[in-house]
Amino acid sequence: MVTIVLLTDFGDSPYTGIMKGVIKNINPEVEIIDLNHSISPQNVIEAAFVLNGSYKYFPKESIFVCVVDPGVGTSRKILIVKTKDYTFVVPDNGIMSLIIGKDKPVKVVSVENKRYFLKKVSNTFHGRDIFAPVAAYLSQGIKPVSFGKTVKKINKFKIEKPEKKGDRILGLILYVDRFGNLISNIESDMIKDKKKDHMIMIKGEIIKGINNSYEEVLSGQPLALIGSFGYLEISLNQGSAKDYFGCGIGTVIDLFID
Amino acid sequence: MVTIVLLTDFGDSPYTGIMKGVIKNINPEVEIIDLNHSISPQNVIEAAFVLNGSYKYFPKESIFVCVVDPGVGTSRKILIVKTKDYTFVVPDNGIMSLIIGKDKPVKVVSVENKRYFLKKVSNTFHGRDIFAPVAAYLSQGIKPVSFGKTVKKINKFKIEKPEKKGDRILGLILYVDRFGNLISNIESDMIKDKKKDHMIMIKGEIIKGINNSYEEVLSGQPLALIGSFGYLEISLNQGSAKDYFGCGIGTVIDLFID
Amino acid sequence: MVTIVLLTDFGDSPYTGIMKGVIKNINPEVEIIDLNHSISPQNVIEAAFVLNGSYKYFPKESIFVCVVDPGVGTSRKILIVKTKDYTFVVPDNGIMSLIIGKDKPVKVVSVENKRYFLKKVSNTFHGRDIFAPVAAYLSQGIKPVSFGKTVKKINKFKIEKPEKKGDRILGLILYVDRFGNLISNIESDMIKDKKKDHMIMIKGEIIKGINNSYEEVLSGQPLALIGSFGYLEISLNQGSAKDYFGCGIGTVIDLFID
Repeated sequence: MVTIVLLTDFGDSPYTGIMKGVIKNINPEVEIIDLNHSISPQNVIEAAFVLNGSYKYFPKESIFVCVVDPGVGTSRKILIVKTKDYTFVVPDNGIMSLIIGKDKPVKVVSVENKRYFLKKVSNTFHGRDIFAPVAAYLSQGIKPVSFGKTVKKINKFKIEKPEKKGDRILGLILYVDRFGNLISNIESDMIKDKKKDHMIMIKGEIIKGINNSYEEVLSGQPLALIGSFGYLEISLNQGSAKDYFGCGIGTVIDLFID
Repeated sequence: MVTIVLLTDFGDSPYTGIMKGVIKNINPEVEIIDLNHSISPQNVIEAAFVLNGSYKYFPKESIFVCVVDPGVGTSRKILIVKTKDYTFVVPDNGIMSLIIGKDKPVKVVSVENKRYFLKKVSNTFHGRDIFAPVAAYLSQGIKPVSFGKTVKKINKFKIEKPEKKGDRILGLILYVDRFGNLISNIESDMIKDKKKDHMIMIKGEIIKGINNSYEEVLSGQPLALIGSFGYLEISLNQGSAKDYFGCGIGTVIDLFID
Repeated sequence: MVTIVLLTDFGDSPYTGIMKGVIKNINPEVEIIDLNHSISPQNVIEAAFVLNGSYKYFPKESIFVCVVDPGVGTSRKILIVKTKDYTFVVPDNGIMSLIIGKDKPVKVVSVENKRYFLKKVSNTFHGRDIFAPVAAYLSQGIKPVSFGKTVKKINKFKIEKPEKKGDRILGLILYVDRFGNLISNIESDMIKDKKKDHMIMIKGEIIKGINNSYEEVLSGQPLALIGSFGYLEISLNQGSAKDYFGCGIGTVIDLFID
């Protein structure tokens, strides 16, 4: 059984439920899983980050439908991107940027065949009118090539990469989670020896060393660790680093490798 | 396989999950889909609007369970309303007002047969004790007539209708979505020629013309368009019209037909 | 078909969706139901309360996965607790306190067998790396004993019990729901005759008697009733008792038995 996984910025709205109705109306057998609907409105970078950190945990053959789509109603393309194990139905707005660097697409198609859309297509809710039915037909085994022309190029944005300056790595906060953990763009493999006496500077405060778990510092104290997405994170034991430092997405962090 | 669709004002509470437990306990085979649980507490008009804009996207035979029920524990009836293609389990509080005008009920039953309730019925959580089990038994094929007496009349509220005054249509905002789009009560078919130079006045500001998509105006600029529910909407390209105009449900809009 | 029920403090984050991916990857056949993800961050008492009030509504054989886990990454145990009808996968942090008093565990196992974990276990997201795969394997029929050693003792916290002083019962608010209902720790069976002229004092205001439903008082007026979880609740007809009294978890209430 194929699974369709939904990622949107629709929040608590009925829009997600309606998409599920459309999908089930076409393929009653498919399973639908919510990955997340709380992407900040129209924040493609946040969506790219969440998608990249999540998709490999889902069963092979899963179809990801990502509707974070500030360009809805414009001429931006909708793509079906097939990698070795997964299929993505996405606006061509950079949302695949982090994935396609590591997981080369084997097929990219521009969705154009109106036969697979709802009969009446609005200009403001392609999630319902195009993404949902296309995913449902894909889940029935219809080949990507039936949906439109093969495409050579996918739009990529350059997500801000950490800057290496001698012993320093300058990064920034890319994502803040529900617990106020600050997730940076510094990947685990940029930091060779996690045991050394590194120092992290954030908002003028210094955090010493990279810890393995929250409890290694006192309750209410900040710490740095490699988070579950594989990036350097700033956290607070039993609290919110976001509140403690009064900062969020875009805050600079400065890592001094000892 | 029949689908049960849930619409409530339970928000992020465990109440929805408990209803799912009750349903699955009776009919493990049924599929449950969340339409929306973020209806403003006890706002029957908002629920009626969302239900009306959504239900036709779901598979035929779907059973909608709507628990926006300020009268819980009072003598208000609970109804099973069957239309040609769908079944609704609802409090008799007007929530069906928008649907039954267009989609005539073929059967309306007042839910009274305690055999289909949980054994112990509370006065405050009929969602769990009555709505959920009734929907589960319906999904097993038990006929509406088994649940109680046929009823002739359904409570309707008169949702504020737009007022036509010569070349002007006076409407108001009925629903504000997650993106701050302001959805009015002026239906698409009240506006004959969408290309003409209509003007919309809202909060003392004038919006010219009805656009087809957000991108037809500059980023941060307001516009009017026919939204995905089929009503005139006021939006902001790349932003929130709700924040821009500082307004919400009940705000008057004034459409001047050219 | 076995059902896995999820209870976490992950809020609107993608963490829940990722857990579902992990579960489905191991057992594509299992059904997953969200009980609730809006437990206040790391609030084990709230989680214990919600779990206790909910679990009996789910089908027998359901597996509850509860990730409210301030001790993640520490040496706190993860337990499989089997009662007569249900299985719980929980951190050993007191979350089972309210259940095990009434529903004696028949088997408690400390989860240690890494064979049933994800290959790479992080220090911060055991929901994904341990709880989810363990629950998925349990749902495939693997016996609890395969996951680790039998354990004799489960950590319990003493949830603040109401204090009886002559004709008075001193309780406190344990949970505030989406509607602003204030749910106390005074259980229904502590109050013998609900019809008598009891008085409840909260925040210096007096509520007379225990009502059966909201409508027994005027709109906007406070009342006391036995709520759907079986505890004494303070509510407001057509409004929020939380806002009315300006109070929340921990607020003292004073019940005078007539």
